[in-house]
Parts: sequence; C-alpha cells; structure tokens
Amino acid sequence: MAPFIVFEGGDGSGKTTQAKALFRRLNSRGFPALLTREPGGTPLGESIRRRLKARRDVSPLSELLLFAAARAQLVQNVVGPALGDGTIVVCDRYTASTVAYQGYGRGIDRVLIDQVNLAATGGLSPDLIVLLDLPPELTLIRKRESAGDVFDAAPLEFHSKVREAYLSQAAHDPGHWVVLDATRPPGELTGEIWEKVQPLL
Amino acid sequence: MAPFIVFEGGDGSGKTTQAKALFRRLNSRGFPALLTREPGGTPLGESIRRRLKARRDVSPLSELLLFAAARAQLVQNVVGPALGDGTIVVCDRYTASTVAYQGYGRGIDRVLIDQVNLAATGGLSPDLIVLLDLPPELTLIRKRESAGDVFDAAPLEFHSKVREAYLSQAAHDPGHWVVLDATRPPGELTGEIWEKVQPLL
Repeated sequence: MAPFIVFEGGDGSGKTTQAKALFRRLNSRGFPALLTREPGGTPLGESIRRRLKARRDVSPLSELLLFAAARAQLVQNVVGPALGDGTIVVCDRYTASTVAYQGYGRGIDRVLIDQVNLAATGGLSPDLIVLLDLPPELTLIRKRESAGDVFDAAPLEFHSKVREAYLSQAAHDPGHWVVLDATRPPGELTGEIWEKVQPLL
Repeated sequence: MAPFIVFEGGDGSGKTTQAKALFRRLNSRGFPALLTREPGGTPLGESIRRRLKARRDVSPLSELLLFAAARAQLVQNVVGPALGDGTIVVCDRYTASTVAYQGYGRGIDRVLIDQVNLAATGGLSPDLIVLLDLPPELTLIRKRESAGDVFDAAPLEFHSKVREAYLSQAAHDPGHWVVLDATRPPGELTGEIWEKVQPLL
C-alpha cells in the first residue's frame, strides 16, 4: 500500500495550495501520485459537493450523511484502488473534517460521527495528516473576499470550535498528525511538508 | 403525536396505490393527513431519488448513506413536525426498506444498517407497518413492463432476499406489522388496511 496523505485545516488555511504543491513535487520526482478532495473526487462526490455548497436547507444530520456517501464512493472507487496499485494519494480533507465541522461545529454526537466515518471509510485511515492551523479570526479575514458558501457563512465561534476540534484530534494522535502554523510563508510550509512526507516514500 | 403509518413491499406490490387510497380515505373522513415517500418528500430527498434511479455507478455503501441523508431530511423537516402537529403521516417505504434492499439485497452488514437507520430517524418508528407481500416471481412480472431503473434491474434472487427480509422483520415485531397478500384485489386490501388503521385514530 502506498502512503495516504491528508491535508486538513479551516477555510483559507492554504491546505488546497499545499496539497497541490505536494502533488506536483511528488510527480516531478517520479512518484505515482493522485490528488483528490472531499467532498468530491467522483461524479457522485462532486455533485454532492455542489449541492452542499449551494443549499442552505440541508439539516446537519443530512449533511453528515451526504459527506459520508461522497466519502464512501471516493474510498471505494478512487483512494482504495490507487493505494493498492502503489499510487500515493494526496487528499484535501478527510474524516477529521467531519469531526471538526459536523461534530464540534454543528454539535452532532461524536459516537455517531465516528460510526458514520468508520462505515464510509471501511477503516481506511491516513498515514500522515497535515494540519494547517490558523486562528479563527484569520479564517474569517481570509475568506471574507471569497464568494460565500454554506461552510463560510458561519460566525467566529463556529471557526473556533473547528480549530479546537482539529487541535484536539492532532493532540490525541501525534504519530500521524503534523501541525503547522498556516500563517508562515507558503514556500516554507511546502518545504517542511516535504520533509515530513519523505520518510513515507 | 398522530399515528405514523408506513407501507412496505417489493416493487409492484401495490403499496403506492394502497398508501394513496389510505391517504384519500383519511382526508375524506376529515383526518388531517400527509402522504409522503422514500426516498423523497423534500427537495433534497427527491433529488437523491432521481440520482439513485438514474445512475448505476453508486456503490452499495454510498447508496445506503444517500438513502439515510434523504431520510434524515424527511424525518426532521416533514414527518416529525407533522406528527407533532397531530397530522397522520402515511409514508411509502421507510427503514424496513433499507434492511430489505441494502441489507438482505446488497449484503451490507445489519449492524451498520441499524446504526445508520437509527441515526437518520433519531429513533422515530412507525405505529403501523403494512407489508404488501408478493412472491418475487410476481414482482418481476409486474415490473417487466415498467421503465427499468436501478432498483428494478435486479434478478429473481435479489427480490427473493428482499421478500425474506420483509417477512423476517414482520415476524419479529408482530405488534407493529401487518402482512397482507398483495395478490388479492386492491379494493379488498384497501378495506382491510382501513380496519387496521381505525384503532389508531
């Protein structure tokens, strides 16, 4: 099995940028790699992503289950087969986002979150999770100029809970998580992430 | 809380017809009632329904979770509020269909099915479940002339498992289930269903 590397963090933390930078570096060094994202990465997943971004009438529980449906499809059709073929998978968000947003953010029971995550992934967990940690005040500022979507319309308190959720998950599993200060220059972060990834290759 | 009445059965068993007949009779007798269906009954649910009917590239697990997302939305936005207002809810399919189709039919673990059903419904269960029981051979014949969709494309063995699942659930909870022979004349069935519903009113 090839390594499975996930980027996590609040909106505007730069995780999409860093996931792409890692993917490009892996490619340029000749490592077979695949870049994907959640929700998304499959026709079903991307359609769920569009719906979740556009609509405000989805209940928190339905939201949780839609994310899970997208994830199940991604793991089964994309991530699992790729890893099995020796392709490194770089994924923008995974189960930790569900704990952060639907659990801490929307207040859904953690036991239920864990059950649904386990169901959707069949227990497939990342070898490395890079958390790009950003104070919630900066999350708001960085996202203010972006087009609003349902994930971004939340107040400061919501983003504080999301950050707390990420830091708590990282603290409980230091063997798999790396926490980086997302306010540092992107090029510096790319270099440090590469150092963490190399031992897995 | 008003009574919650669910119709279950294989494709072509006549449950949609009987659900409508009961709904009309309740209305004509002056009982506030609501007729809905699964998956569906909300904008999100109907869109999930269209997707599930049209596409063949959804994994069984994603299918389970999409049904659950539709159900969570329906229970929270429609069924729960209606029952709380004293409106009788008549629903075409509910959790027993998930046990039958995704559990027995597609082979997903029953513990997982039950967890997901419980999550989606918050434990809201019907006061009466009417099973319109049809031999799987007749299910196939009755559906042959209909336009094919993903639920109908299955072979006899699938429909046999679905029937077995329904009968097993009914046998385990005779206080809530009523099993009717779906080959009987529709008008006769409507009358017998009305007899079962009256004590709940």
